[in-house]
Amino acid sequence: MSNTRTELAALGEFGFINHIHKQIKIYNSSTKKGIGDDAAVIQPTANEVTLVSTDLLVEKIHFDLTYTPLKHLGYKAIAVNVSDIAAMNGKPEQVTVGIAVSNKFSVEALDELYAGMRLACEQYHVDIIGGDTTTSTSGLVIAVTVIGKAQPQQVVYRNTARPSDIICVTGDLGAAYLGLQLLEREKQEFLANPSMQPQLFDYEYVIGRQLKPEARMDIIYELADMGIVPTAMIDISDGLASEILHICSQSKVGAVIFEDKIPLDKETYEVALNQFSLEPTTCALNGGEDYELLFTISQKDYEKIKNHSDISFIGYITEDKSTHLITRGNQQVPLKAQGWQHF
Amino acid sequence: MSNTRTELAALGEFGFINHIHKQIKIYNSSTKKGIGDDAAVIQPTANEVTLVSTDLLVEKIHFDLTYTPLKHLGYKAIAVNVSDIAAMNGKPEQVTVGIAVSNKFSVEALDELYAGMRLACEQYHVDIIGGDTTTSTSGLVIAVTVIGKAQPQQVVYRNTARPSDIICVTGDLGAAYLGLQLLEREKQEFLANPSMQPQLFDYEYVIGRQLKPEARMDIIYELADMGIVPTAMIDISDGLASEILHICSQSKVGAVIFEDKIPLDKETYEVALNQFSLEPTTCALNGGEDYELLFTISQKDYEKIKNHSDISFIGYITEDKSTHLITRGNQQVPLKAQGWQHF
Repeated sequence: MSNTRTELAALGEFGFINHIHKQIKIYNSSTKKGIGDDAAVIQPTANEVTLVSTDLLVEKIHFDLTYTPLKHLGYKAIAVNVSDIAAMNGKPEQVTVGIAVSNKFSVEALDELYAGMRLACEQYHVDIIGGDTTTSTSGLVIAVTVIGKAQPQQVVYRNTARPSDIICVTGDLGAAYLGLQLLEREKQEFLANPSMQPQLFDYEYVIGRQLKPEARMDIIYELADMGIVPTAMIDISDGLASEILHICSQSKVGAVIFEDKIPLDKETYEVALNQFSLEPTTCALNGGEDYELLFTISQKDYEKIKNHSDISFIGYITEDKSTHLITRGNQQVPLKAQGWQHF
Repeated sequence: MSNTRTELAALGEFGFINHIHKQIKIYNSSTKKGIGDDAAVIQPTANEVTLVSTDLLVEKIHFDLTYTPLKHLGYKAIAVNVSDIAAMNGKPEQVTVGIAVSNKFSVEALDELYAGMRLACEQYHVDIIGGDTTTSTSGLVIAVTVIGKAQPQQVVYRNTARPSDIICVTGDLGAAYLGLQLLEREKQEFLANPSMQPQLFDYEYVIGRQLKPEARMDIIYELADMGIVPTAMIDISDGLASEILHICSQSKVGAVIFEDKIPLDKETYEVALNQFSLEPTTCALNGGEDYELLFTISQKDYEKIKNHSDISFIGYITEDKSTHLITRGNQQVPLKAQGWQHF
């Protein structure tokens, strides 16, 4: 980021839109008209359905600019939306970006935010096709709508898990939550003693998981290659327990989860126990923002997927509608969602 | 609005989504799956393109809750987005709604906002298919994305006006701006003297135009019935002058506009002159938020449309790239956009 500071007022709303527009690259032939008219124009693929999802990121609720680099924030705003399309077993192609921002932001600061969004768009092959940029009297709000596509028979919902299906989860869990705890702790220490040096370099993994999450599109493409259509799927934004309960209540089934099968990175484990005296399993069950995928498969598909190094098989779906965790000590405890309480 | 007050925290985020979901009606068979999964699913029509537009409405920038009823605000949030689809000559079918709202809002207050959105959805036959509701540490932010459709050859852009095309405008202009001036004046008077009674009943038309604008979908359907595809089109959100300049610069043409052809309601005329000592023409040229349509047609289409009671023919497109207003006194003055300066 250069040291130049250009006021947004110097460009004006239309000037700023033109400035952003010039830097945007289009990856998908389905994008017929992007920024520059009253609406964007998309050419749907014959025999495919359109998927649409919207997420808001609000300053002081979803992010804290004292420790969130704007470039990371831009990346995350796109990634978390792409994750919703992944969770439908679809392919993301377009996004619109609405930004409400205070005058205190310079053009250079917004350029950083957009640089992160462009990086995510390159990563996921997604086109920024429109949006709205306006003043805010207070904090920064980012509203992203993502548009994707899928063949109708490939779309995977939350309400279609069936008894005896195997419950799968990608990657590892709890790290993003612990990254947030570390960042918050450093912030409080910095506020108490502004001359301190942040000591975060030991925990790059968990902090990276909080600041720059990835949507698991890689898994979606691999499932397609393996010829597997999950029976149900959701992305893990509010914690594993909450998402399992969503699948179970919507599918009218229950589940049994084994604590020792829940995937944890060793840094997650160490930070949870040694830095915060937290149960690592609790962080995985109730910590949010990992953006991994939780899905169920038919038993017949297990052979195709069982050796995948980044997928864990953590339990199974039951006809009985209760949901339980079998602990390491072989105790059966009811699964409860704590998730995030936004209100 | 009842006097009961239910805190948002009593329902929680998922509880609130369920509460809203139950009241939503689906009008379009293209909506395959609405609220309740990671993304909504839309079935595109064969041989039609998808249109997408996003608009933000931010408290204290776009609306003032001291004089904006929440129901009207909800209606407006949908209508202004539908207007963007109208401006492409398309048909709106779905919206997603993102809301960031402070804890001070009750469930009943958000119900009013959604009641207005549902009313607009009924009016324009649009389905609420998803969104996001979250806390805000400060003001209310509403992010709406609208999805529509059109046959590819029917889509009308801003950059396709041609020399000698006739410039048309629907309805009348300037009223929404004057409505805002009246509301702002009443607010200041109320703040100075809280025992005063508002005296707005004399100006129902201009105030209604500010608080409850309509998207001109009626005109879009009529143009289709008359067999007219405009050569270029835009909706008038920032004032007539600004929108004409958008069409001219994007189409690489100029325009001549006749002051005496610009449509003004007689209440607009009276409020401008008698209440604010403003030139009515200036209000029409530079006042925003009328959400009327500005479009150009081929001369050959004029016969089909010339007797339409709600369309005015205000000038023509020129090959010469300058844009001029011919005043009532027959003077030629350059057209300048003042519009809204958001930054």
